[in-house]
Amino acid sequence: MEMNEKIVLASRPAAWVEEGNFRLEAGEIPRPGANQVLVRNEWLSLDPYMRGRMSDVKSYAKPVEIGEVMIGGTAGEVVESNHPQFAPGDKVVGALGWQTWGVADGNVLRKVDAGIIPLAAWLGPVGMPGVTAWVGLLDICAPKPGETVVVTAASGAVGSVAGQLAKIHGARAVGIAGGAEKCRYVVDELGFDACIDYKAGKLREDLKAVTPQGIDCLFENVGGEIFDTLLGCMNPFSRIAVCGLISQYNSAPYPLQNIAAVLINRIRMQGFIVSDDLSRWPPALAEISGHIAGGRIKYRESVVDGLAAAPAALISLLKGGNFGKQLVRLRP
Amino acid sequence: MEMNEKIVLASRPAAWVEEGNFRLEAGEIPRPGANQVLVRNEWLSLDPYMRGRMSDVKSYAKPVEIGEVMIGGTAGEVVESNHPQFAPGDKVVGALGWQTWGVADGNVLRKVDAGIIPLAAWLGPVGMPGVTAWVGLLDICAPKPGETVVVTAASGAVGSVAGQLAKIHGARAVGIAGGAEKCRYVVDELGFDACIDYKAGKLREDLKAVTPQGIDCLFENVGGEIFDTLLGCMNPFSRIAVCGLISQYNSAPYPLQNIAAVLINRIRMQGFIVSDDLSRWPPALAEISGHIAGGRIKYRESVVDGLAAAPAALISLLKGGNFGKQLVRLRP
Repeated sequence: MEMNEKIVLASRPAAWVEEGNFRLEAGEIPRPGANQVLVRNEWLSLDPYMRGRMSDVKSYAKPVEIGEVMIGGTAGEVVESNHPQFAPGDKVVGALGWQTWGVADGNVLRKVDAGIIPLAAWLGPVGMPGVTAWVGLLDICAPKPGETVVVTAASGAVGSVAGQLAKIHGARAVGIAGGAEKCRYVVDELGFDACIDYKAGKLREDLKAVTPQGIDCLFENVGGEIFDTLLGCMNPFSRIAVCGLISQYNSAPYPLQNIAAVLINRIRMQGFIVSDDLSRWPPALAEISGHIAGGRIKYRESVVDGLAAAPAALISLLKGGNFGKQLVRLRP
Repeated sequence: MEMNEKIVLASRPAAWVEEGNFRLEAGEIPRPGANQVLVRNEWLSLDPYMRGRMSDVKSYAKPVEIGEVMIGGTAGEVVESNHPQFAPGDKVVGALGWQTWGVADGNVLRKVDAGIIPLAAWLGPVGMPGVTAWVGLLDICAPKPGETVVVTAASGAVGSVAGQLAKIHGARAVGIAGGAEKCRYVVDELGFDACIDYKAGKLREDLKAVTPQGIDCLFENVGGEIFDTLLGCMNPFSRIAVCGLISQYNSAPYPLQNIAAVLINRIRMQGFIVSDDLSRWPPALAEISGHIAGGRIKYRESVVDGLAAAPAALISLLKGGNFGKQLVRLRP
C-alpha cells in the first residue's frame, strides 16, 4: 500500500541548517474532508524563506512547530475532490508542504494549465518567485527607461525574473551572482547588460566599471557586505526593494556601515513579502506568463530527485549552491 | 563706519567641530546689484545640516569652501532694494549666511509678516525646520489616527513640530530626548503622550513601557544606537522618515545591527531633504502658521547674542546642548 512520505522539522537549527534538523516519516495517505481536495504532489519548491520558518524568533510568519511537516509550495495532480471547482486529473499549485500527498481546502489551491507552461514552472517564474520579482521590481523599484537596476542573486528564481523584467521595461540590468558560470548565464542567456561575480572579491571596483551612472534601483536578495557596498553606490532618489537577506539568515546580524546613504541620497527602502497583497498576483502572473510564452523571460531549474533529497538541497540553496529555481521532483 | 561682520570656514573639522574651524572677519557692507536686495540680518539660524557642509565628502549639497562665508538661514530687514517686490523696511527670510549684512536676488528671499508671528519664528516652526517636520511626518510617515509615532530629538526645532503635528492629526506621540528637563517640556508643554530620556540608559525597556502597541511611524533625527534600537521595535508595515542622523555626523559610521527588520516587518524607510520639493513649502507653512496662531503648536528658542557666539553655539547644538530652536541674535 502506498504511504504518504513526509519530512518534519525534528529540531531548530542553531546557525546553519543541518540534515539532522529534519526527519523523514511515513504515514497514511490523508482523506479529503468537506470542500477539500486530495493532491498527489509532483513537485516541491525549495525557497530561502524556509530558513526563517525553522526558527522560532519573531518574524512575519509563524514558525513550523517541531514534529510538524515542513511548509513549502507544491504542484501536483488532483486524485479526489470534494470541491466543485476541482476534478481528478486537474493540475494544481498549493502549499501542501514537504510530503508526497496532501489535502487542502479548494479555495487555497490554484488550478493551472500545464499544457503550455510546464507544471514545475508554476512554482518558479509563474509562481511565488516570479510574482515576488514583479512586485519588487515594478511596484517598489519602478525603474524608468534608461535607469540602472542592480539585482543580487541574479541567477536565482527571483533575481532572474527581476532582471529580465527590468530589461523588458527599458532599464539597464546589472546582476550580481556567485561564480563565473552563473554570471555567464545571467548575461548570455538571461540578457542582463552585465553581471559581477562577487566571489572575485572586488565588488566595489567592478561596480564602478559596470554602473558608471550609479544605481537607481536595487533589487536586494542577499544582505550583508554586498548590500552594504551597494548602499554606498546608490544614486540620489534611488529605490531599494528589500526582498531577502539570505546571507544573514544563518549568522549574527551584519553590522551595516552605510545607512547614512539613505539620508544623503534620499533613498526609499521598502521591505516586502509577496503574500501581503494577493491582489497583485493576477496582474503579475498575466504579464509573466505572456513573457514566458513569448520567450522574453527565460528560466533555469535545479532539480533533485525524491523527497529524501530535499534537506540537502535546501542546505545547498542557503549556501548559494543552486543554479536557478531549486525544485524537488517527488515522482521520479 | 559700520562693517559687515562675517564668519568664514577656516578649516575642515577632523571629527567634532572646533572653534578654530571658523574665523571672524570684517568687510565692507555689500552693494545690491540688479534685481538684488540688501538685507541687514537680525537672526541667524543654526541647524545640524551645517556640519555636513563643513566637510568635503560627497553629500547632497556642495560643501562650503575654505575661506567662504558659512551658509545659514537668516531673517532681517531690507535696507535697499533693486527688486520690484521688496522695499526698505520689509522683513525677509533667506539664506544669507553667517554675516550681519547680505545681498541676494529678490527671487530667493521670502517676505514675511513679523506682526502676528515674531520674525525669529520664521527660521523655526514657520521656516525650514517646521516644513521639514511637516513633510517627514505627513508626506512620509503619514500616521493614521490612533497610530504610535516616535520622534527622536523631540525637543528640537524639527522634532517638536513633528510630534505636535502627529497629535493634531490624531496619532499618539512619543518623544525621545536627552535629559529629564527636555522630557518634561516635551510632555508638559508640547503635549506629547510620553517622552523617554535616552540618557537614562534603558531605552529598550522604557520603549516597551510607553509603546505597548509597537511603533507605526518613526521620525528619525538622531541615528546610531538609538535608531538601531527603534528599528527593532517597528510594527509590520511601519514607516520611517530619515530626517537626520546627528549622532553620526562627527564619528565613524555606526554599525547598524537591525536592518533585517526592514524585511521582516516590511518597513518603508525614506530619507529626505526639505529643499528637494519646494512645492511642499506653501501648504506646510499655511498649516503650521495656522496652528501657531491658534496656539496648537508651541515652540521654544535657544538664543545666543552676537555673531561671534555662533561657532560655540553650533558646537553645542551638535552635542545636544541646545533646548529648542537654536538662534543667534545678530543685533543685541
